[in-house]
Amino acid sequence: MSELIIWTYDWVPEGPRGFVRDLRLRWACEEAGLDYEVRTVPFDGRETNHLDRQPFGQIPFLNDGDLEIFESGAGLLHLARKSDKLMPCDPVGEAQTLQWTIAALNSIEMVTVPWWFLRLCGDRDNQLAGWMKQRLDHLERIFREREWLAAERFTVADLLMADVLRVSDVRAFGDRPATEAYVARITARAAFRKAQADQIALFVAADANRGRPD
Amino acid sequence: MSELIIWTYDWVPEGPRGFVRDLRLRWACEEAGLDYEVRTVPFDGRETNHLDRQPFGQIPFLNDGDLEIFESGAGLLHLARKSDKLMPCDPVGEAQTLQWTIAALNSIEMVTVPWWFLRLCGDRDNQLAGWMKQRLDHLERIFREREWLAAERFTVADLLMADVLRVSDVRAFGDRPATEAYVARITARAAFRKAQADQIALFVAADANRGRPD
Repeated sequence: MSELIIWTYDWVPEGPRGFVRDLRLRWACEEAGLDYEVRTVPFDGRETNHLDRQPFGQIPFLNDGDLEIFESGAGLLHLARKSDKLMPCDPVGEAQTLQWTIAALNSIEMVTVPWWFLRLCGDRDNQLAGWMKQRLDHLERIFREREWLAAERFTVADLLMADVLRVSDVRAFGDRPATEAYVARITARAAFRKAQADQIALFVAADANRGRPD
Repeated sequence: MSELIIWTYDWVPEGPRGFVRDLRLRWACEEAGLDYEVRTVPFDGRETNHLDRQPFGQIPFLNDGDLEIFESGAGLLHLARKSDKLMPCDPVGEAQTLQWTIAALNSIEMVTVPWWFLRLCGDRDNQLAGWMKQRLDHLERIFREREWLAAERFTVADLLMADVLRVSDVRAFGDRPATEAYVARITARAAFRKAQADQIALFVAADANRGRPD
């Protein structure tokens, strides 16, 4: 049995396949060569059926032996300390990786996810667009200057930032060639491709058990 | 000279005083008994005048000797590893602190800040309210069951979550007595009171240099 167990839903509709956040943890394990298993909780009743393990009813959460940890960002930082393929061990490299990981969660995703949510609700030109433009323009400037966010090499910060930015609506929001090249480059990595393919395969296989695709 | 330097703006208008995010880092240093200095960058021209140190033009950022780190959440996690008053040293306590710190940033603040931003834009009953209600109701259930988020003691996760939840509009959003008691309890701590008073004093003193309050 693997020490690392990544928990996700047993099925999701077609739309989010390839984007469900267990992918972040799968991808990190693939990058680092860490052995892991994937297990599932039921998608039906997800709002309440695993609140004892994830207090907002979300996935993923991670087991590492006796230790259990939720929030994909926390799981990534936990895994990053297991392998210098995800985060350098020197204090400067670690601080840079940490700050850019948190920036992906709290300066970028804090705008892109609510913006996208409002679009889903039908408010396509919503009032978060100006704020999002500012943040993405700052990132574009960064990506014009450098290949990686932290420590001049691939880190878990790139993994997370690319995952945040690869959402198709976000990619289509304005013309930012350096950002687009960054996202394309990071998501071309073999570890991402395998993690994404494995996630999609799990949900496709689950269609059969549900009788029909949704 | 202190090894730890917390950077903030040299002035802000009255509205955000007591809520500017340098407070999170001041508070953490006060809890841990870490020596620190506060220095400033100009509020005027903040969009571009310190982009080399904070890529989105925000504050705070932190110096720790030669090391520089931005994002208040990253600064908190960095400081937390200096003192077990902020985070336990055992793996389980550390994982719990990490997951709840990230939850404050990416499950709660990711909803509360955009919700509040839309209200500021005039959309008081905006479409993020339902999502925010779900998240805050989950937290209310947690706070009914326990005093602290992680490790059965005060950690930096409580510091951050209380800072996210103490915004008056968020407190007024529905009746959640356990959450309200939690926020009142955490913000009654002497370290918070000192950090908040020091921040406000800095900005009040700066009024004189600007000639008038804004």
